[in-house]
Amino acid sequence: MSHAAAKASIGDSEFDRDTTVTPRAGEPGVYDAELSAGWTIITAVNGGYLLALVGRALSAALPHPDPFTVSAHYLTSSVPGPAVIRTEVVRAGRTLSTGQASLFQFDESGAEVERIRVLASYGDLAALPDSVHTVAEPPAMPAYEDCLGAEAGPAPIPGSNAIVDRLRLRLDPATAGWAVGAPSGKGEMRAWFELADGRDADPLSLLLAVDALPPTAFDLGLLGWAPTVELTTHVRHRPAPGPLRVGIVTRNLAGGFLEEDAEVWDSANRLVAQSRQLARAPR
Amino acid sequence: MSHAAAKASIGDSEFDRDTTVTPRAGEPGVYDAELSAGWTIITAVNGGYLLALVGRALSAALPHPDPFTVSAHYLTSSVPGPAVIRTEVVRAGRTLSTGQASLFQFDESGAEVERIRVLASYGDLAALPDSVHTVAEPPAMPAYEDCLGAEAGPAPIPGSNAIVDRLRLRLDPATAGWAVGAPSGKGEMRAWFELADGRDADPLSLLLAVDALPPTAFDLGLLGWAPTVELTTHVRHRPAPGPLRVGIVTRNLAGGFLEEDAEVWDSANRLVAQSRQLARAPR
Repeated sequence: MSHAAAKASIGDSEFDRDTTVTPRAGEPGVYDAELSAGWTIITAVNGGYLLALVGRALSAALPHPDPFTVSAHYLTSSVPGPAVIRTEVVRAGRTLSTGQASLFQFDESGAEVERIRVLASYGDLAALPDSVHTVAEPPAMPAYEDCLGAEAGPAPIPGSNAIVDRLRLRLDPATAGWAVGAPSGKGEMRAWFELADGRDADPLSLLLAVDALPPTAFDLGLLGWAPTVELTTHVRHRPAPGPLRVGIVTRNLAGGFLEEDAEVWDSANRLVAQSRQLARAPR
Repeated sequence: MSHAAAKASIGDSEFDRDTTVTPRAGEPGVYDAELSAGWTIITAVNGGYLLALVGRALSAALPHPDPFTVSAHYLTSSVPGPAVIRTEVVRAGRTLSTGQASLFQFDESGAEVERIRVLASYGDLAALPDSVHTVAEPPAMPAYEDCLGAEAGPAPIPGSNAIVDRLRLRLDPATAGWAVGAPSGKGEMRAWFELADGRDADPLSLLLAVDALPPTAFDLGLLGWAPTVELTTHVRHRPAPGPLRVGIVTRNLAGGFLEEDAEVWDSANRLVAQSRQLARAPR
């Protein structure tokens, strides 16, 4: 979708359609969903997209609307097609509630196979006081127009990646060297992030944003799949309209595993999400 | 226990006795435990001690021995006394297995009340390659003998805190100003960390170490309880014998919540654990 196309709105966009969850009649807390082929990397469904889907189911199941902290353990690779999300209300408190959810797909015999399991605490971002005391700084990166979009040359992720068409990612040139065989070696990845149809960010799309950039391992010269073992995201503020800035760093690659620490900043210069994942290093 | 006392060993120490879990006959995956009054802050049981207890149960329940990534959501406050831990093997893979555990205590009628729920992926730290590629640096802090132990003056945590006697914490003076009414305002906390009976660290005691220092909020001038909502810990390497260094930073206090990012370094200068928690800011 080009920049000139009509801007999609929250509730009526590719992301919203592809994260629709349908309550199953007679089974409270159970939601049917369809994993879209639009959010795949090679053949695997993106982990952030999955998390947003599960996050939407929990938002429906819990008494509070917004994810505050979401911990996901990835069990088996997801593929496009039908899925079911089973939720449980673990605790419903006054300002926070905690839920659990699992997303399943189906094997040849129709038996459920668990893809990810999630524990999450939800609250109401709009009810929080607006006070901020932060020493965090937005990622140091060039202006939007000086970063590299997909049109700049090589696909941001090698191979056939449908997700590239769903996102308007513009990579900081300093962290894009791997695409031309010259990774910086620092383990950093920075990009401007928007949904391709222009839908503004909301707390659910932040769950996608934290896991939608190329892996930091690429910037270490390790071009391969870095499967997520666990990903925890804190949503700290409701994002303002406009492009997000996402900065990710890996400080410690050891024993075949690495962490990815992501920060997401909105157009109002607020730190809106923080995440950390443990991933296997590419072999 | 003084420095001169005999050094306790892994498997025969206060920490090991107080994190004992006893399989319940006829109920696979269910473990009885007793929360010791020795690990309390005021009247609440320390969250890291609880995590170590649950971690020990998962180590017994899962086919792999060591916590690699442990995500805990804290539901209600724990008190000293009996508890039961119910575990589930979610997935048993070749190099990693994933489990879930809940720790319950009992209300007046004997009904189970859930305290914390945990999702964790376990592996075998000894089986990992020894390769390290890190830009992380140990916390910048003075030598052990130049840091402040409990004998230096005010109790590290105001009030009656049994846990102080179980730990040999030596605070970096730069992050101890709050104890004399002069917090630095930076949101940092650094300390040398050992168990008081000299037992060396292991992966389970790292789950305690990440949540055993005074809250970083104290260093921001907020002296009060900062209850943990969620705490995720990555254990990255088996710790070498000797005192650990723990550095914790808070970068973003906003909307009444804050994150605490902890790193634990061993005597061989290895980054052995990383953790992040979301906590409520003291009011």
